[in-house]
Amino acid sequence: MLYGLTRAGLGDIGSDEQFLKKAAHYGFEAVDIDALGLIKRHGIENAQELLRQNQMVIGSIGLPVEWRQSDAVFRDGLTGLTEAAEAAAALGCTACCTYILPSTDQKASHFMALATKRMRIAARILDAYGIRLGLEFVGPHHLRTGWANPFIWTMEETLDWIDAIGEPNVGLLFDAYHWHTNGSTVEDIYKLRADQIVHVHINDAPDVPVEDVLDNARLYPGEGVIDLPGFLHALHHIGYAGVVAQEILTQMAPSDSSETLLNRSSKGFDKVFQAAAIRRTKRGDGE
Amino acid sequence: MLYGLTRAGLGDIGSDEQFLKKAAHYGFEAVDIDALGLIKRHGIENAQELLRQNQMVIGSIGLPVEWRQSDAVFRDGLTGLTEAAEAAAALGCTACCTYILPSTDQKASHFMALATKRMRIAARILDAYGIRLGLEFVGPHHLRTGWANPFIWTMEETLDWIDAIGEPNVGLLFDAYHWHTNGSTVEDIYKLRADQIVHVHINDAPDVPVEDVLDNARLYPGEGVIDLPGFLHALHHIGYAGVVAQEILTQMAPSDSSETLLNRSSKGFDKVFQAAAIRRTKRGDGE
Amino acid sequence: MLYGLTRAGLGDIGSDEQFLKKAAHYGFEAVDIDALGLIKRHGIENAQELLRQNQMVIGSIGLPVEWRQSDAVFRDGLTGLTEAAEAAAALGCTACCTYILPSTDQKASHFMALATKRMRIAARILDAYGIRLGLEFVGPHHLRTGWANPFIWTMEETLDWIDAIGEPNVGLLFDAYHWHTNGSTVEDIYKLRADQIVHVHINDAPDVPVEDVLDNARLYPGEGVIDLPGFLHALHHIGYAGVVAQEILTQMAPSDSSETLLNRSSKGFDKVFQAAAIRRTKRGDGE
Amino acid sequence: MLYGLTRAGLGDIGSDEQFLKKAAHYGFEAVDIDALGLIKRHGIENAQELLRQNQMVIGSIGLPVEWRQSDAVFRDGLTGLTEAAEAAAALGCTACCTYILPSTDQKASHFMALATKRMRIAARILDAYGIRLGLEFVGPHHLRTGWANPFIWTMEETLDWIDAIGEPNVGLLFDAYHWHTNGSTVEDIYKLRADQIVHVHINDAPDVPVEDVLDNARLYPGEGVIDLPGFLHALHHIGYAGVVAQEILTQMAPSDSSETLLNRSSKGFDKVFQAAAIRRTKRGDGE
Repeated sequence: MLYGLTRAGLGDIGSDEQFLKKAAHYGFEAVDIDALGLIKRHGIENAQELLRQNQMVIGSIGLPVEWRQSDAVFRDGLTGLTEAAEAAAALGCTACCTYILPSTDQKASHFMALATKRMRIAARILDAYGIRLGLEFVGPHHLRTGWANPFIWTMEETLDWIDAIGEPNVGLLFDAYHWHTNGSTVEDIYKLRADQIVHVHINDAPDVPVEDVLDNARLYPGEGVIDLPGFLHALHHIGYAGVVAQEILTQMAPSDSSETLLNRSSKGFDKVFQAAAIRRTKRGDGE
Repeated sequence: MLYGLTRAGLGDIGSDEQFLKKAAHYGFEAVDIDALGLIKRHGIENAQELLRQNQMVIGSIGLPVEWRQSDAVFRDGLTGLTEAAEAAAALGCTACCTYILPSTDQKASHFMALATKRMRIAARILDAYGIRLGLEFVGPHHLRTGWANPFIWTMEETLDWIDAIGEPNVGLLFDAYHWHTNGSTVEDIYKLRADQIVHVHINDAPDVPVEDVLDNARLYPGEGVIDLPGFLHALHHIGYAGVVAQEILTQMAPSDSSETLLNRSSKGFDKVFQAAAIRRTKRGDGE
Repeated sequence: MLYGLTRAGLGDIGSDEQFLKKAAHYGFEAVDIDALGLIKRHGIENAQELLRQNQMVIGSIGLPVEWRQSDAVFRDGLTGLTEAAEAAAALGCTACCTYILPSTDQKASHFMALATKRMRIAARILDAYGIRLGLEFVGPHHLRTGWANPFIWTMEETLDWIDAIGEPNVGLLFDAYHWHTNGSTVEDIYKLRADQIVHVHINDAPDVPVEDVLDNARLYPGEGVIDLPGFLHALHHIGYAGVVAQEILTQMAPSDSSETLLNRSSKGFDKVFQAAAIRRTKRGDGE
Repeated sequence: MLYGLTRAGLGDIGSDEQFLKKAAHYGFEAVDIDALGLIKRHGIENAQELLRQNQMVIGSIGLPVEWRQSDAVFRDGLTGLTEAAEAAAALGCTACCTYILPSTDQKASHFMALATKRMRIAARILDAYGIRLGLEFVGPHHLRTGWANPFIWTMEETLDWIDAIGEPNVGLLFDAYHWHTNGSTVEDIYKLRADQIVHVHINDAPDVPVEDVLDNARLYPGEGVIDLPGFLHALHHIGYAGVVAQEILTQMAPSDSSETLLNRSSKGFDKVFQAAAIRRTKRGDGE
């Protein structure tokens, strides 16, 4: 598995160049970053060179098409999707992810039908570029009632939805926070196959009842109560060898410097990976 | 279009042989009948001969697989589905239909994902036999709250679901009763393409507010308030040339003789087709 | 059915504006035109206005993505495809077509697998814009051996390929010339359903043995030996009510003026449609 | 990975009961066997008990539906497919495999389209039972010209076909003999993902030029020139942890006793797995 970062939780880390350089300096091997933006700002060759210099891979791009509103809005995003996919492919990125809000103001059954159709189109386009689509279930209880009608929030429901979409390149974005807020167990991970997982996020949760965990009250890995060693060990055991990216959503932006936050993140990763008894290997070492 | 019958509304019409013979006698050209049962009871050649003698086609068979419960129950029905499809194909039937209850005790979004996957499998199997799958939306208001969670009941929602299923051989079973109870209009039919319709049912409704129409309080065509001439004229206009089958669901079995009921049905068909200004042609006349 | 034109066979007919105006003047109701180019040159509102002024619809756009070479080349065309589809949809066009060369220098079986995958992607993208994909089989015998390995060239093979692609919005571009060079009959058309046809081309062939008909030796409708009345009558009978567009491919550009050629085309259409006993109706008259 | 056996190469090994017992005795953990036949002969509970007693799993069943002839023949096999899938699922088997002849008397491109459609149906049915479909490319050169037209025989072509089929549960049956006769390398295996492999066969080849290797001149593992240690090591490296089943096709039935042949097979497996530096673990040990 590869140590990965998103910008969430790192404060004002600065330009792409600084983000990549600092990530590498603190021992990270992957970043979730906007590939198209990177190319637009730097040109394709410089973007590739930036990644190469820092021995950095892109863990995932975000799905740039709006699939939660109307068919017309979805359609308007498709040109942007092909462009984003082309950029990601040019930079060697093979994952594109989006999250599923656990409730909706739309009629839930109808929205599920509409979203299924849209996801099939998005998946098919991404597949043309060799990119997989990762769907992230979102567990915090307050979001389940945040909109009028319950949608889906469990791993099982999401796997069933992936079956309904029916495209070979769709899988989970599996986030430790949502695993925790679902009250799921290590045994639930053992039931997965590695190829069902497109991308992984980690972060930690405060010691409050699961029902009270807020989506934007996340802690750094190793600083909370989530069984991250169990989580990582199980993922490793089933053969997952991809990126594990930190994503720390908080109400207030952290006030520490990016260096301090990166150092904290790096120590957190070392702590939970060591506790998971995963010998860390560099990419390509044949993990 | 072909005049069609189901057994619903005809009283105790007796054996297959009698049903087919009487249907033909009263001017009907199609019946919705269990093709596999017909073959089991008569043998394949006699079943074909029975249809030929009465110049009768089969409008549709019912989908014999249970798709509303668990994956395991669904799967258990698949062998029965291939057998039923084989029987239908042997008797020249090209439609297989099921209805969609407008509410469910399952979580609506999750059930929609599960049902989508199951319908894709059923559609693919039927396609191997040259058979289309018709989905019937069910409009009566009391059924929308008959179970805990709203599912889907409109034509538009059903067309969106058909898109989500994504198989070329899936379309609507379009029932005049559900069109009426949805408060739909002739203009809504004009927006359809003929190939989106797999099968059609007609029947009539009492003169009560649309919200109070009960699913099992159906009247014979021409005896109620549904604009069946408008319904049929619009279907004809968009190019629908298939079977239109009567389905009269009532709380109490009708007490009249089958002959009386057939006569009443036949007169009802003539009335509404004439009012629709549809010149009736025999199958194959190039309607 | 609507009288339609492509630019092929009309000489130097000039700008979009002139093409649309002259087409209308000579009684045509549809043109096959590059929707995206039209919008780029005129702006979207002027493009819509140009069509409205001339009471003209767009019959079909050409598929702008190269699907016959490598996966990489195909992929490079996808952004152009979304843009073209968006433009077509904005101008009310619902068909996008491509032709299938009947032989290939690639290994035929492998190319069929690759092309199937690519067509599924293209179809899915077009579907997001409400556009159907028409595949044109190409019959002339000299092209069947024009490249090393035979591919497909019959209606039946093409329908089987459409089944393999498996998307609901894929059908035939049905060209009278290829119907003729396949030695097909009116009965073959009767076996089709209208919804299997996305678009129709007509033109005529010289009185030479079918094996010797060259792809670029086409005549104007009514000037050759193709049974166009039978072709059109059968299409009308099965319910096809879309565009029938002239496409005259010739070795030498015609030397007559566009006006002369349009007049000749118009007379040809009237001749073969009258012989087909098709009462011509204006769009929307409820044909 | 699990040591597996087919009956091919074991002489007259006798009844199911004897096959399972002897396989277990010689250290094998999986057999490729007809699950439906096993249940028909023993009843479902006894069949399950036979497997349990011998700590044996079923590696794969054969695809029981004929997909190489007409649509009608294919369709006639679908009821048998649901029955076979149900039986396999009841015995815990999750793979169903078929082989692809590298040439065909049918027109290759058209046959590819037909076969794609049929495989999509078969895959969808198997998926309902939680079973994956493995497609085996067949490499021996003499079979590439055994029928009139070349079809497909390489790993790459087969992966492209799997993409065209487009169902998530389709992958390779990867046979060391066909890898060898394609002149493929260990590097080719490194390009695969484990989830692209449904099942693996091993056997060995005589020391003759690759072009002259006959399909039915197979040797026992470790007795020929195929780089089986490299083959197995690469599979292990990419994370394949499923069954590796011996399949020895020969012109003459072997004259040795089954015990002798099993002993020889067992020694061959130990030799090549040890040379591959794969520490053998029992199923469930967390390999």
